Amino acid sequence: MYVSVPPMEIESRSLAIIDAEVPEPRPFAGDQWAVARRMIHTTADFDLLSHIRFHPAAIQAGKDALLAGADIVTDTRMALSGIPVRRLEPLGCTVRCLIDDPAVAKRAKSEGVTRAWAAVDEVMAHGGADIFVIGNAPTALYRLLDWMERGARPPKLIVGMPVGFVNAAESKELLLAQDAIPYITIVGRKGGSSLAACVINALLKLAREPRGS
Amino acid sequence: MYVSVPPMEIESRSLAIIDAEVPEPRPFAGDQWAVARRMIHTTADFDLLSHIRFHPAAIQAGKDALLAGADIVTDTRMALSGIPVRRLEPLGCTVRCLIDDPAVAKRAKSEGVTRAWAAVDEVMAHGGADIFVIGNAPTALYRLLDWMERGARPPKLIVGMPVGFVNAAESKELLLAQDAIPYITIVGRKGGSSLAACVINALLKLAREPRGS
Repeated sequence: MYVSVPPMEIESRSLAIIDAEVPEPRPFAGDQWAVARRMIHTTADFDLLSHIRFHPAAIQAGKDALLAGADIVTDTRMALSGIPVRRLEPLGCTVRCLIDDPAVAKRAKSEGVTRAWAAVDEVMAHGGADIFVIGNAPTALYRLLDWMERGARPPKLIVGMPVGFVNAAESKELLLAQDAIPYITIVGRKGGSSLAACVINALLKLAREPRGS
Repeated sequence: MYVSVPPMEIESRSLAIIDAEVPEPRPFAGDQWAVARRMIHTTADFDLLSHIRFHPAAIQAGKDALLAGADIVTDTRMALSGIPVRRLEPLGCTVRCLIDDPAVAKRAKSEGVTRAWAAVDEVMAHGGADIFVIGNAPTALYRLLDWMERGARPPKLIVGMPVGFVNAAESKELLLAQDAIPYITIVGRKGGSSLAACVINALLKLAREPRGS
């Protein structure tokens, strides 16, 4: 039955339901649980709990980067739309997506690569970024790791969650195979722009309102 | 292992993989399978196949509405971002989301309702819309059905896929309990802006490139 719930309480009730349905001991604790729980909240897909992977330094790196005014790059406009730009701006953060940039379209066409791949090249050719949020394109993650292997300036965090059936799982295995750059990822085929974006929301919340305070 | 795939082939290879992993007889056939398959493509979540529900007239209603230049309203900016506005405009379609409209914020605050609820009121108070795409807010779907019960102008299609733990499943049960308005939905908690948006993409593809042609 539909239950009338005051708007301000919908989120906290939802999170309490997830807490109750994933009893302790949980697969993640503390801040990692806060991020994982947000991902369940976004999809209602508890299966993710077996597939989420955190680099041990990822949460702290993400919080620090946001509080220091991160330059955030997303692979899709959907991920961009899911990130609360207005709440990030006071911290000095910027959020951008180059997928529709004319220079990217031109580069993709002339080189026969995806626009997501060309967008990473465009970002890296101009100094890189602090946080990459990849929710759709395996080619974006693969290309970013390619730049890293060649010694380019690393980001502070990679939220690497491309979804799909061609190279998505493989690109995330490559991300997991390195430990120089902090990452948050989902092994296997699952992922998506909503998931990648919600990780930034969760990190922002943790950065601004430390748990227990 | 990462395999280099020409950009133009990534989608068709992905869809072929899904076809292969869901052998005949499938839970959906024809155009319904094309839409359901797109939803799997967007999430890599095969569990959806047990939860997707089509009103029998939904696919035709959706295609007809798009070809006639539908006025499409989404509940979130993410869903809006996931809809290919540039490919819809030549058909005369418009796509809008009122969640950030100042009149909606004002209405939500003064009435103590969610902005998603107030946005539906704003749309309905000004003549309604042809297609509602609801990927996030149960309150949007609930409020829309409330207007329908009171005899307001019905949309031609409701893509009703709010996600979550508070009222999402319940709002979709209400949608399924009526058959006057064609719908595409997902029973239970799952849903999301990416899923709701990809249904429009799938319908657009079906409308423009009928299968078999």
